[in-house]
Amino acid sequence: MATNEHPMNGGDGKISYARNSLAQKKSVDASKKFISEAIAELFDIEFDPTKGSSMGIRIADLGCATGPNTFYAVQNIIDAIDSKFKRSLEFQVFFNDHVNNDFNILFRSLPFPRQYFPVGVPGSFYGRLFPKHSIDLIHSSSSLNWLSRIPKDVADINSPAWNGDSIYCKGKEVAKAYSSQYKEDFENFLNARALELVGGGLLVLVFGGIPNGSSFNQTTIGKDYEILGSSMVDMANKGLISKEKVESFNLPLYYASPSEIEKLIQDNGCFSIERMETFPGTRKNIVNLQMWPMTVRAAFEAMIRNHFGGEMVEELFEIYNKKHSDNVSIFEGDDVLTLVQLNIVLKRKN
Amino acid sequence: MATNEHPMNGGDGKISYARNSLAQKKSVDASKKFISEAIAELFDIEFDPTKGSSMGIRIADLGCATGPNTFYAVQNIIDAIDSKFKRSLEFQVFFNDHVNNDFNILFRSLPFPRQYFPVGVPGSFYGRLFPKHSIDLIHSSSSLNWLSRIPKDVADINSPAWNGDSIYCKGKEVAKAYSSQYKEDFENFLNARALELVGGGLLVLVFGGIPNGSSFNQTTIGKDYEILGSSMVDMANKGLISKEKVESFNLPLYYASPSEIEKLIQDNGCFSIERMETFPGTRKNIVNLQMWPMTVRAAFEAMIRNHFGGEMVEELFEIYNKKHSDNVSIFEGDDVLTLVQLNIVLKRKN
Repeated sequence: MATNEHPMNGGDGKISYARNSLAQKKSVDASKKFISEAIAELFDIEFDPTKGSSMGIRIADLGCATGPNTFYAVQNIIDAIDSKFKRSLEFQVFFNDHVNNDFNILFRSLPFPRQYFPVGVPGSFYGRLFPKHSIDLIHSSSSLNWLSRIPKDVADINSPAWNGDSIYCKGKEVAKAYSSQYKEDFENFLNARALELVGGGLLVLVFGGIPNGSSFNQTTIGKDYEILGSSMVDMANKGLISKEKVESFNLPLYYASPSEIEKLIQDNGCFSIERMETFPGTRKNIVNLQMWPMTVRAAFEAMIRNHFGGEMVEELFEIYNKKHSDNVSIFEGDDVLTLVQLNIVLKRKN
Repeated sequence: MATNEHPMNGGDGKISYARNSLAQKKSVDASKKFISEAIAELFDIEFDPTKGSSMGIRIADLGCATGPNTFYAVQNIIDAIDSKFKRSLEFQVFFNDHVNNDFNILFRSLPFPRQYFPVGVPGSFYGRLFPKHSIDLIHSSSSLNWLSRIPKDVADINSPAWNGDSIYCKGKEVAKAYSSQYKEDFENFLNARALELVGGGLLVLVFGGIPNGSSFNQTTIGKDYEILGSSMVDMANKGLISKEKVESFNLPLYYASPSEIEKLIQDNGCFSIERMETFPGTRKNIVNLQMWPMTVRAAFEAMIRNHFGGEMVEELFEIYNKKHSDNVSIFEGDDVLTLVQLNIVLKRKN
């Protein structure tokens, strides 16, 4: 499988992911109580009496980026397990992201002291990452919206799904191509996790979606990507980048609706849906108009650099930032929707 | 425990560890057959019948640096296990080194395709790295000569073990201080591994030592460190670095004799010595006079930079390289010894 890797900005400088991931942090916060309660009620492990009190619990966070959000999320999970079992447990935490993620920064910013043995796992979570039956709880936050690759047809001028100079999932045929790639990825994800989790193990997923019955370009984030795309078109019109490059650029991001996700999980069949909650993002929380452009840059810069070359990046984000603040009004219409946050707990069928 | 971290040179450039670790590669080669045979005869695992053929084996390599030697060593271990059990096994390999090791380069140079799930583990192997009873086989090559810190007394002008402007383990009192630090470190190492290995798990160690009854400054490597130290003294005499900085610099390396190691393992009591072989390094192998200065630089540069600041590094290694080639004769005397390579297989007592 050809995969696109799209590392978040590394390091810990001004435009690093580590310092520009407040939106992702909000998702972690919004799922905290939900996850604690799910663990209290659903997380069952068999204690091996031959091992006395030395039971080890293995937790994985998939799509960890460079921190710090992953550390909050993991600590919340450990606290919930600790308060459930009230015995001395040893935790091993597997932090996973693409091989091009900046693991050096991740490791150097690990909390200290900490209550777990940390481990880094390089690789795409759309494939296998762990031996069979080796993980007790897998968590993933703000990562499952990233596709393993751009749907082939959207960049093919001869396809009805050709996306022209739009850079995101917009229009019926394009949405169909995105949805089909998402289905393939999500199935691969579930199949891999089903092998890796112990029987009864939990899969805790937090990611964004569109409200049932809506389309992505109605959402604030969709409108934001529209601005990013039109900034690229502006640059092409000025002859600063090629039109073909803009036409072949598409964001590998997809936001499904809750009912679409539910169907994918049921069709897959490896997991029971134990909890599923959609959490309405308030407009203010999700689009913090001052912070958002930096969040977008930290997440997308590497991918844009990779496609267009590095020379255009500064100017692109200047244009984008200006457009963004000049067009605040488009986020404020009555028909504008915010994405929902999906909080889902799945249990591996035995 | 205060630890000194001394990462090998990162990246994959001209003076990187990744491209200047042939001496360490020779150690891996020299232990290959020894390790294969030990696994064939000694590695016993209980297959859990409830897991069918999906048994997973966990292997750790401690002090992996940035590759590629660790990949050869690990593949050799996997081949030996595979040819012993002749069944479908899943391997998870834990690559460990200090948190300041360049794990990004390690991950990006992983062999592909590969037969195992790779994982990076940041931290000092003189402390705990893994949950209890979680690893089947632990391997460490060319790493156990690095102390967790410089013995305190050797940098204390009021101590009889003060090492003045010598930078390595030389002289009776200094050797005593180094030996005592080594004892503490080696015990910590064995105690941590004893907790982490499954009962019957193997601990395979490859590292350098001095011949029984000899002292380190008689060896080729000792003489080499003498040249490095005298290059620093030359720079201090020219006023390019301070005399105090040279006096407070000491290499955190110790080479024990086989009998010293044997006693440490027996006194510790957690492991049985299943195999112990000393492998005489030929002079030509260990001191490849063309390559050696680069090997030394790749291994020591970060530590030297850290102590003296970066400005002096180029000139130091120029002086050192020149001295090294001007003094080839000192490696050729009849009384000059080469280090031995120790190959040891320990089994965790149940």
